[in-house]
Amino acid sequence: MNDEFYMSLAIKKAWQYQILTYPNPAVGALILDKNNQILSIEAHQKAGCNHAEVNAIKSALKKLNPNLIFPKDEKQTYDFILKNHNNLLKEAKIYVTLEPCSHYGKTPPCANLIKELCFSEVIISQKDINPTAKGGAQILKNAGIKVKFGVLQDEGFLLLEPFLRCLNGNFSFFKLGMSLNGVIKGGVITNNASRLLVHKLRNVSEILAIGGNTVRVDRPILDTRLLGENFKNPDIFIYSKKNEFDKTIPLFSVQNREVIISNDIEKLKNYKLCMIEGGEQMARNLPNFVTHVLIFFSNKFINLDSISLNLELELLFLDKLDDNYYGWFKIKR
Amino acid sequence: MNDEFYMSLAIKKAWQYQILTYPNPAVGALILDKNNQILSIEAHQKAGCNHAEVNAIKSALKKLNPNLIFPKDEKQTYDFILKNHNNLLKEAKIYVTLEPCSHYGKTPPCANLIKELCFSEVIISQKDINPTAKGGAQILKNAGIKVKFGVLQDEGFLLLEPFLRCLNGNFSFFKLGMSLNGVIKGGVITNNASRLLVHKLRNVSEILAIGGNTVRVDRPILDTRLLGENFKNPDIFIYSKKNEFDKTIPLFSVQNREVIISNDIEKLKNYKLCMIEGGEQMARNLPNFVTHVLIFFSNKFINLDSISLNLELELLFLDKLDDNYYGWFKIKR
Repeated sequence: MNDEFYMSLAIKKAWQYQILTYPNPAVGALILDKNNQILSIEAHQKAGCNHAEVNAIKSALKKLNPNLIFPKDEKQTYDFILKNHNNLLKEAKIYVTLEPCSHYGKTPPCANLIKELCFSEVIISQKDINPTAKGGAQILKNAGIKVKFGVLQDEGFLLLEPFLRCLNGNFSFFKLGMSLNGVIKGGVITNNASRLLVHKLRNVSEILAIGGNTVRVDRPILDTRLLGENFKNPDIFIYSKKNEFDKTIPLFSVQNREVIISNDIEKLKNYKLCMIEGGEQMARNLPNFVTHVLIFFSNKFINLDSISLNLELELLFLDKLDDNYYGWFKIKR
Repeated sequence: MNDEFYMSLAIKKAWQYQILTYPNPAVGALILDKNNQILSIEAHQKAGCNHAEVNAIKSALKKLNPNLIFPKDEKQTYDFILKNHNNLLKEAKIYVTLEPCSHYGKTPPCANLIKELCFSEVIISQKDINPTAKGGAQILKNAGIKVKFGVLQDEGFLLLEPFLRCLNGNFSFFKLGMSLNGVIKGGVITNNASRLLVHKLRNVSEILAIGGNTVRVDRPILDTRLLGENFKNPDIFIYSKKNEFDKTIPLFSVQNREVIISNDIEKLKNYKLCMIEGGEQMARNLPNFVTHVLIFFSNKFINLDSISLNLELELLFLDKLDDNYYGWFKIKR
């Protein structure tokens, strides 16, 4: 097995948390001990929580010393590792999809942690160009750690691209749930695991856009109820020529939510992270700034008319969600 | 990483050759050195060629000694390994999706090879119940090798199920190629890699069944031309009430092929391995003995009517094929 094999496992792990880490990038990490045994494969899961490197180090230490009890408060993980690593990861290697950070943000810099634990090598897919976080590789090199860049560089870029687009002002993706034969109507299509992921995506999105027609017909609530109470519900952008809506439609009653009704779809570009949930009409008229499509597939063929449009996509990632599956695609233009 | 992790990699590898190994089962193998470094992940690829264990041992030895030049003739691999292993795999572990064989078939028994190379442990998903090949674990145990059964047993069974159905008399699967929104008409849908896999499947199938209507409308050739010349073309079963066909339809001109025209679909149960390629009508009326569906998905939405039927499936395996992907599904009834 080579560097590409290990990096591909780290990249795949990171894709499972794509967008959910907003405003941070999706990042994965894999640790090999000095004999090349895989100790852990982890990802950054949510902003404010541990970075991928910290999660991977935590898992690796747990595997090597099952008696180690980590603090419940994630914020203490970093310091706990510094005090309790016991040189267990000396000469280990870490594969990271993005250059380890060098800055004190919500968590201290990962590059320092890797240095302190005396890793022998850091293998990186994508260089960090974010001015506030870049420079981790230099810290590592200065400490005499071998640094290798560019392993699965293209795949690493595709993983990072949504984050880079957010940084540049806007990342907009279109979400679709359908049967195996493309049916998007007739009630609930996808399973609980799929809808849970949708609610997590809504929770991090700055704005959730939807077509006026879908609002009138489906009367949706578009909230994050599957996550439990006290989770942020996204503001709503209703794309509609007509400004009049029946305000008893549930989405209007969600607390702490702004609802914008506009016929200017370009306004969505003002939001850094925009999720679009729509029907056939929206899918047929995706504006140019929408670059990605996220499709949830059920495990059924359904005897109804399917969605019909012309669209060519590039497959980025596929994964099971219990008995359903989903895929991230990039629009080819 | 635990046994389940390694076994899942072996199972995934084996699925890539599902059916292509007929009349043998699809089997995958993964080797860890004594320090738990992954040395290789391989599968049995075709009847008459190396078993998964032999392929995995070959890859592992190549990794450990890149100067080792294996004989071009696959039949000599086994003996070459016996003479040249140099104890490089002493105390290694091997994960196999199916109990290593104990019999001299087209290749000598894998259990003996594992014994001779002094592996320390063999981890197995599924016990071999095939009377001619079973008993490998006993050979290993007698040699003092640790044997562990039942790791990812259910997944191992699903991998093996098509083979077991062939053994019991018949395995029939329905193949479908479609756009992301379920369109199956309008010319070639899927990419070259998908069609290459279809031709490989045709090459091993005992019979290829197709609906009479599709024959009349599509005028197919249903051969294996993408594999090159001199590859076996499958016999054809045309399911049709009417016996009359225009014999200039290309499929009738393929050499060394029997074409059966019948309105009795149950006759397909007389064949051990039956692939069904059909259109909407066939999909809507799949007989009870058809248990699996193999779907090739293109990377496009197409603005045409989609296939429309009711069918509930269990997802078994998904994999990319360049810019397309495909999935093996089991029909829920």
